[in-house]
Amino acid sequence: MNSHPGAESLASGAAGREIRQACELSSTLRGFAERSNVMLSRALPDSTQPPIPLHQAMHYAVTGGGKRMRPLLVYASGCAFNAPLEHLDAAAVAVEMIHAYSLVHDDLPAMDDDAMRRGQPTCHVEFGEAMAILAGDALQALAFEVLARDHAAPISADVRLEMMRILGDACGSHGMAGGQALDLAAIGQHLGANELERMHVLKTGALIRASVRLGALAAGCRDTDLLAALERYGHCVGLAFQIRDDILDVEGESAELGKTAGKDAAQGKPTYPAILGMQASRIHLAALTDEAMTSIAMLGDSAAHLRDLARFVAERES
Amino acid sequence: MNSHPGAESLASGAAGREIRQACELSSTLRGFAERSNVMLSRALPDSTQPPIPLHQAMHYAVTGGGKRMRPLLVYASGCAFNAPLEHLDAAAVAVEMIHAYSLVHDDLPAMDDDAMRRGQPTCHVEFGEAMAILAGDALQALAFEVLARDHAAPISADVRLEMMRILGDACGSHGMAGGQALDLAAIGQHLGANELERMHVLKTGALIRASVRLGALAAGCRDTDLLAALERYGHCVGLAFQIRDDILDVEGESAELGKTAGKDAAQGKPTYPAILGMQASRIHLAALTDEAMTSIAMLGDSAAHLRDLARFVAERES
Repeated sequence: MNSHPGAESLASGAAGREIRQACELSSTLRGFAERSNVMLSRALPDSTQPPIPLHQAMHYAVTGGGKRMRPLLVYASGCAFNAPLEHLDAAAVAVEMIHAYSLVHDDLPAMDDDAMRRGQPTCHVEFGEAMAILAGDALQALAFEVLARDHAAPISADVRLEMMRILGDACGSHGMAGGQALDLAAIGQHLGANELERMHVLKTGALIRASVRLGALAAGCRDTDLLAALERYGHCVGLAFQIRDDILDVEGESAELGKTAGKDAAQGKPTYPAILGMQASRIHLAALTDEAMTSIAMLGDSAAHLRDLARFVAERES
Repeated sequence: MNSHPGAESLASGAAGREIRQACELSSTLRGFAERSNVMLSRALPDSTQPPIPLHQAMHYAVTGGGKRMRPLLVYASGCAFNAPLEHLDAAAVAVEMIHAYSLVHDDLPAMDDDAMRRGQPTCHVEFGEAMAILAGDALQALAFEVLARDHAAPISADVRLEMMRILGDACGSHGMAGGQALDLAAIGQHLGANELERMHVLKTGALIRASVRLGALAAGCRDTDLLAALERYGHCVGLAFQIRDDILDVEGESAELGKTAGKDAAQGKPTYPAILGMQASRIHLAALTDEAMTSIAMLGDSAAHLRDLARFVAERES
């Protein structure tokens, strides 16, 4: 672990974490986010090379900020098994490229029709719809290519194929794309809490769970109990992330969120506060965070970053 | 080879082929196309399971007909190395899913804005734009998943990863998506023949070359000279396919083509007949077909299906 950038911050242990602002990322997690930014920039095609507008749109979609939650999950999960960070880079890059492509396509006029994302014009506003569609398509292909091409990690080809199956499954009609289809069908409908949860378990949850599993697999974890525990952690953190998003959408301001606050309600999208009420949403969020912590208790101190991340997800202000 | 459905048609050899109508597929190639239809149906998600509209749109996009040129190239290439067909199915399915997704996205209003494809309403006309975008996205993910998950073929994990790298590269910004970006940029522009060729080498050529290579790799071919020869064959056949498409767009009728004839010219899209003239386009097509044949001469009789396919590409009427 000591070879990791920022690993020294671990030495302060629980006491050090407690005096930190609860809604901020630990310095190690911030280091992971910065590392993922560097790795994403390296993995993207040169934007001065043709087709230039496409490459520019791909860069714009990926490098415009964001919390890098999915790369953080890859790194935090891999670190729980003492993986050197370079073994985790390809998976971190792949999941963020998938996430970035999904945002570009979600923002399109035919989908959520969002003009603002992370405080910037959305990709189709900046580059046109056609280029945004293509940039998303090319990012998805690149994510799989990056994972297949990775030479940094001594991961067996069998395990790498397993990782690609997990990523493919998480992106497809039984994962993220399926969740997005359920989300579209839900606009203006009266959903129950279970239906809402089912949608989120696919739409954002599938890729979050995959991120945690990919980190562990890249780190050499083959223990099915541990992988199941991490899957549970990912499930809880994914839903917690969404509930916090819904709460922030009601409470937040556009400048802080980097997107249009109150948009979900205005679009008639079902949200946790709308279905459960604000108080029950907060209680559900807390319960999921507790379950996330409990599910990785068996990993002990090595899961410190996963715990930090679950806490951040529950308490973040943007 | 005798274990292949339709292999008996091979016994008649060159003489048998000559008396066949030049623009028809051989019975073996028709058998490959039928096989790919069965395999595609098996690989697609159950369209009676949720999210039903998404799964229906995916089926619609894939099972609505088409020549199955890319699966045919996989099977024909693999058969040149005596592969059992079941070793080639996953690659055949994967390349056709990629092709199908690219058509769905190309037809979108923000792209080519096509309302008709293969004689049917396009996917977004039938299912709405949002569902068409998602169906394309999910099909791309499924293509990679199918290739990663394949259990039928005794292909080493290393080779399978190489196949996934090839597929990812063929789909991305240096392949199909990049070619589509060049195509969009070319509308209304005056392109030279070289620029037109560069666009097609990416837009349709990349996936066609990948199909030929995937078939050979799945069949166990590791000979770099042979793989380079097949790459050359794929390059020539891919361009020939496009030139024939452009010629048919000028000459054909909508009913036969299953799409709107004369659309390229109406949209100001550069075509071979527009740039080279019809006569020079025909000569270029013949030269490419000759080069395709020459490039695989070293494979002898085992490349019969590849030769049949190159001939069909050059002479097809739809």
